[in-house]
Amino acid sequence: MSASGVNACVVSVGNELLFGETVDTNSAWMGRALASRGITIVRRYTVADLAEEIRHAVREASGLADLVIVSGGLGPTSDDITRPSVAELVGAPLEVDEVLLQRLRERFEACGYGELPALNVSQAEVPRGARILHNPRGTAPGLAMRFSDTWLVLLPGVPRELRAIFGGELSEFLELEFGDRTLSVSHRTVHTTGVPESRLAELIEAAFARAPAISELAPDVSVAYLPDLRGVDLRLTTRGLQADAADAQLSHVLDRLEPVVEPWRFHATSGDIVESVSGALRSRRMRLATAESCTAGLIATRLTDLPRASEIFVGGVVAYENAVKQALLEVPEDMLVRHGAVSEAVAVQMATGVARSLAADVGVAVTGIAGPGGGTDEKPVGTVWLAVSGLGRPTSEHIRFVGDRQAVRERAAQAAFALLLRSLQPRP
Amino acid sequence: MSASGVNACVVSVGNELLFGETVDTNSAWMGRALASRGITIVRRYTVADLAEEIRHAVREASGLADLVIVSGGLGPTSDDITRPSVAELVGAPLEVDEVLLQRLRERFEACGYGELPALNVSQAEVPRGARILHNPRGTAPGLAMRFSDTWLVLLPGVPRELRAIFGGELSEFLELEFGDRTLSVSHRTVHTTGVPESRLAELIEAAFARAPAISELAPDVSVAYLPDLRGVDLRLTTRGLQADAADAQLSHVLDRLEPVVEPWRFHATSGDIVESVSGALRSRRMRLATAESCTAGLIATRLTDLPRASEIFVGGVVAYENAVKQALLEVPEDMLVRHGAVSEAVAVQMATGVARSLAADVGVAVTGIAGPGGGTDEKPVGTVWLAVSGLGRPTSEHIRFVGDRQAVRERAAQAAFALLLRSLQPRP
Repeated sequence: MSASGVNACVVSVGNELLFGETVDTNSAWMGRALASRGITIVRRYTVADLAEEIRHAVREASGLADLVIVSGGLGPTSDDITRPSVAELVGAPLEVDEVLLQRLRERFEACGYGELPALNVSQAEVPRGARILHNPRGTAPGLAMRFSDTWLVLLPGVPRELRAIFGGELSEFLELEFGDRTLSVSHRTVHTTGVPESRLAELIEAAFARAPAISELAPDVSVAYLPDLRGVDLRLTTRGLQADAADAQLSHVLDRLEPVVEPWRFHATSGDIVESVSGALRSRRMRLATAESCTAGLIATRLTDLPRASEIFVGGVVAYENAVKQALLEVPEDMLVRHGAVSEAVAVQMATGVARSLAADVGVAVTGIAGPGGGTDEKPVGTVWLAVSGLGRPTSEHIRFVGDRQAVRERAAQAAFALLLRSLQPRP
Repeated sequence: MSASGVNACVVSVGNELLFGETVDTNSAWMGRALASRGITIVRRYTVADLAEEIRHAVREASGLADLVIVSGGLGPTSDDITRPSVAELVGAPLEVDEVLLQRLRERFEACGYGELPALNVSQAEVPRGARILHNPRGTAPGLAMRFSDTWLVLLPGVPRELRAIFGGELSEFLELEFGDRTLSVSHRTVHTTGVPESRLAELIEAAFARAPAISELAPDVSVAYLPDLRGVDLRLTTRGLQADAADAQLSHVLDRLEPVVEPWRFHATSGDIVESVSGALRSRRMRLATAESCTAGLIATRLTDLPRASEIFVGGVVAYENAVKQALLEVPEDMLVRHGAVSEAVAVQMATGVARSLAADVGVAVTGIAGPGGGTDEKPVGTVWLAVSGLGRPTSEHIRFVGDRQAVRERAAQAAFALLLRSLQPRP
């Protein structure tokens, strides 16, 4: 936990969050929003719609942080008890705010709901002395109040309302109250694919051990490994440094990382390798066609997740059955018989065949055994052949993936994009 | 908080969760999984990768609950410190488990990574006396140990690994340790697609208002709406009732729901409409081919997520560019010119064309405008035409979806499966 700087805790209120009927997307969103302001979330609580639970979490959190954000439980119904629970904790009576009440009445008439229901009047009640943060998208305003040395901020749990208040009057409030104390935070992210997290960590620790010691060159840089089925992201972070000092330290680490990650690294602001594959195709004015067996459309789907995909993608064939490989991809029957559908020869022919029949510049093909069935001693589940055509002589790759059906498919698609990228940007 | 029954706390570990770089989907998933076993989550903590933070949360949680599940921080890298932190708290030294170590070695050789990296050896270390919960999908096993009157369970943070352990040895463990004390919980889930949550809620409230009052027939049934891009699930729950009483009350509600949800309902244990489409195709011994424009392989990918897909799926064409619709799907150029690519005529021809050229019994086609660009006044973004051929005369459907590119694609694919299902199981 950062000793200096501004620390925050988040308390999310709602049985539906605990029971899992709602996924809490607010917390992650606020985490990013606060981090980008240099405010560090040091702990998060998720509690039931119970007064003692809310008070316990808020009390403990305010002993820990300069800012405590409580989200949820500001609605008009009987299980919305955040406002009275917190009011009691801070010892401020609830009073109807006439301006708020008027706004509520107008809003209801504007929506054609007519008369304001008695239930909603409670939403105009605020703890005495609390600051009101306007909610442009709903009836429950945000509220800010002091509690000993901490600022408590109450926000509605409805994501679009919470975000609207956050982006509006809460931002101004945070700047006003904490602007001078927040730590500047700098990030760099390095995207890799095709190397396991543990292997990468070993190589990096070895590289960092070399003199001059990275611990001296960049003592304030923390490195986090963020792995998923598609690869491992490395996130470098500095907190509390001036921009130039941060840049210097981050550059030291990046320089040391460069040769280590080079074989597996790709560049993409979105973190999706499809972004860099699309960029490489655009810059070479080339368009791609896909021939997929075990991935069955996953590569085509990912290629078209991004807008303007038609500039780099013509179309594809999902050749799940061998007959389709013969009919649409010009794979000769005897080749299938001699080498089997999961073979280098078939992968290469699929890539060249799809590029020709769809009149594309580049063809990419995947054929493999996703499992759980279909494996043999010679070709166990997870065996995949990849091929790329149209960029010089065809390139191909054989990989044995581990994991279940979904993992094999995800990893095979990602490996196909990696092979495409290497073929589009041949290294010296 | 349930006075009787079994209470649980969840402690999620990871800076990436606090900083919002990862959305915590595990907690909601575990909330549902535990609730369905009659175990109530009473509080949730999200803490940083810091020993004192992990210990504070675990200590406090174990004073509150019978079961404390700690997820995350079991990886091989230096920021994964959950195992040692908890070991110190419970006062059990970490010892290498030889069986685990052997499993790890084998796994690494199987993957072709060769020698086990020294880093990974730490994943074979377990607090003395801890029970090991097998992880079929990764290198970090689950661990269960006593801490005063509480069971502590450590799980890896990778969702697919956490869920695999939960569905496997952890389930048996929970049944063994808590089975006799948990409240009996009964669920029924009704899956719908093609109707918005608010509309569904209106219709259901109207149906429930009819006499005899549902509130008297089934006072203990709670109804939760679980919407996502693909549809709305209705989950009916009773807690603490004997099986027969629960069945009776749930039946009352289901009887009342039946006529309301009938137009949009589908049956699938997995909750995925692909399961029921596949079942319908199998029972009719028919195989499907797909022709996709805006969904670009999403339908084929979902069809093949399940094993043994080759029994019901031949393959497909991703006809992103019109030239592909002409070359591979026999769509005449003048039809494209006259009606446009997003039209009923083209959708029907794509469905019949793909079935013919791939020699499939049934063809399904999607053509539409996913956006953000490409919309016109006549055909705005979100306009989609669907068609099914091979089951009597072709059926087609025109839908205008709202939402961003991803939402339109997801909803269009789901609507195609719904149309397929209606065509495969014509209603009387």
